[in-house]
Amino acid sequence: MGSEALLSIGTYLKEGKRIVDEALERYLPGRENFPPTIFESARYSVFAGGKRLRPILCMASAVAVGGVGRTVLPVACAIEMIHTYSLIHDDLPSMDDDDYRRGKLTNHKVFGEGIAILAGDALLTEAFHLMSAWDHMKDVPAERLVTVINEVSEAAGFFGMVGGQVTDLESEGKVVDKETLHYIHVHKTEVMITVSIRAGAILSGAREEELNALTEYGKKIGLAFQIADDILDIESSRDVLGKDTGSDEERKKVTYPALMGLEPSRKKAFELVQGALADIQYFDEKADPLRSIAKFIVERKS
Amino acid sequence: MGSEALLSIGTYLKEGKRIVDEALERYLPGRENFPPTIFESARYSVFAGGKRLRPILCMASAVAVGGVGRTVLPVACAIEMIHTYSLIHDDLPSMDDDDYRRGKLTNHKVFGEGIAILAGDALLTEAFHLMSAWDHMKDVPAERLVTVINEVSEAAGFFGMVGGQVTDLESEGKVVDKETLHYIHVHKTEVMITVSIRAGAILSGAREEELNALTEYGKKIGLAFQIADDILDIESSRDVLGKDTGSDEERKKVTYPALMGLEPSRKKAFELVQGALADIQYFDEKADPLRSIAKFIVERKS
Repeated sequence: MGSEALLSIGTYLKEGKRIVDEALERYLPGRENFPPTIFESARYSVFAGGKRLRPILCMASAVAVGGVGRTVLPVACAIEMIHTYSLIHDDLPSMDDDDYRRGKLTNHKVFGEGIAILAGDALLTEAFHLMSAWDHMKDVPAERLVTVINEVSEAAGFFGMVGGQVTDLESEGKVVDKETLHYIHVHKTEVMITVSIRAGAILSGAREEELNALTEYGKKIGLAFQIADDILDIESSRDVLGKDTGSDEERKKVTYPALMGLEPSRKKAFELVQGALADIQYFDEKADPLRSIAKFIVERKS
Repeated sequence: MGSEALLSIGTYLKEGKRIVDEALERYLPGRENFPPTIFESARYSVFAGGKRLRPILCMASAVAVGGVGRTVLPVACAIEMIHTYSLIHDDLPSMDDDDYRRGKLTNHKVFGEGIAILAGDALLTEAFHLMSAWDHMKDVPAERLVTVINEVSEAAGFFGMVGGQVTDLESEGKVVDKETLHYIHVHKTEVMITVSIRAGAILSGAREEELNALTEYGKKIGLAFQIADDILDIESSRDVLGKDTGSDEERKKVTYPALMGLEPSRKKAFELVQGALADIQYFDEKADPLRSIAKFIVERKS
């Protein structure tokens, strides 16, 4: 991808982030409500500067199958709330015990552990409230909403994100093999990325073969994203990434580069992205944003 | 209510608990799955001997409007999962810091804080997975499911249970007035009881005036239940209730009896139950279980 394309995906992501931030601002109640602390705490982490990759993918996927990005915005934002809840809980002292994220103090360092746990709980719950809110999605058939709620809750639960975090937690300080590392990456990261893409397509009435192709695309870029994240953790300086880089190594958390080496990891991520592009090769130009995002994932510097 | 009626409500609740326990056993994946710890931890708390009041109310409400209890069983069990998640998180050291519940060690005392937080997260998520599972509720229209998911998530979230727990947490050790106590009780307990009753009725196609009457009934027995709980906390011995009784007082947690006195609290609970019975006076004999449960709530000894 040349610098021209890079400029264009940069603009696309910036515009996507603006749309998502604006919507989250509307959907998330403010601290004028009671009790103010919980809204302040939830908002602190939701607006801590995320890239909004998952909601942007959800909207791009809707567009790729002929839908409208704004139609799926409530579900896209709900997925971002689930992502934020998972970060708040992962950072807790009894989990990864992180003091900083994206250059800011973690939620529990500012609001205390009790409120941080409750802010995560509330964001997770609010996500399902938003996904089931008729008034925001009048044109979406109820059957599609139920299907999407079912898929998102599966991806976030026992057999998805929570399962991945449990395995991650139980692996700390242990020698971990490739299979376990793959399990953690797939469950902590890939499944929520894949379901973001599926949700946008399902809500827009995608045909089965489109949905299958997008699922394959999602699995590959989801894993590539996590590998790229592992590489960035080693390479970036604290200033760029805004969290303690090299912190994975310090805590003896297993990563792709640690197990497979830096160059083979880079190669693996690149191959995954090529595969993802092949998965959606028969889509027309409406899938171009998905193509650009796939390339961006392994080329980003933060 | 004479001893004959008491015997009959006892049998009814026992049978209800059996049906709910059996269903939860089927719906909740076991520790043969990976990673086993999280299923073990979630099941430890789900099967710690709850009365299953919320799911029983959900089924009884379905029956009261001419529906079938078993049809709403997945949603009834989902609400019990949400209830269990809230207990696990409430007991954490950064919240109420309880070592025992129902005579057993609390989740985090057995599995550690990290796993306890994740077990709560997984149960909350699984509740929405179960409520959106077509295969368990083929005959329920999607519109009703979406409405119920929306109401349950509202009751459990910022403006419901989480809001109540935040206020409870922020009130510990402070002088609390009646309004704040009322806010905590309504949000921590009443709203989830009311939504259990509404969910059963909505799923069964209740008419608007039935739904309104059941909502009023729910608000009153929900509050009566919490007042009765406060009274039991003072009166019961540890052996009967299975948790540190008098622990509210010890931690200077505010309760109805502490603020209003024991007898006025008893009177208040009794009046609420009378009001609840009046709310559903025009329902036929299919609402008899709801009537018996209302009376049971203030007469129970544990």
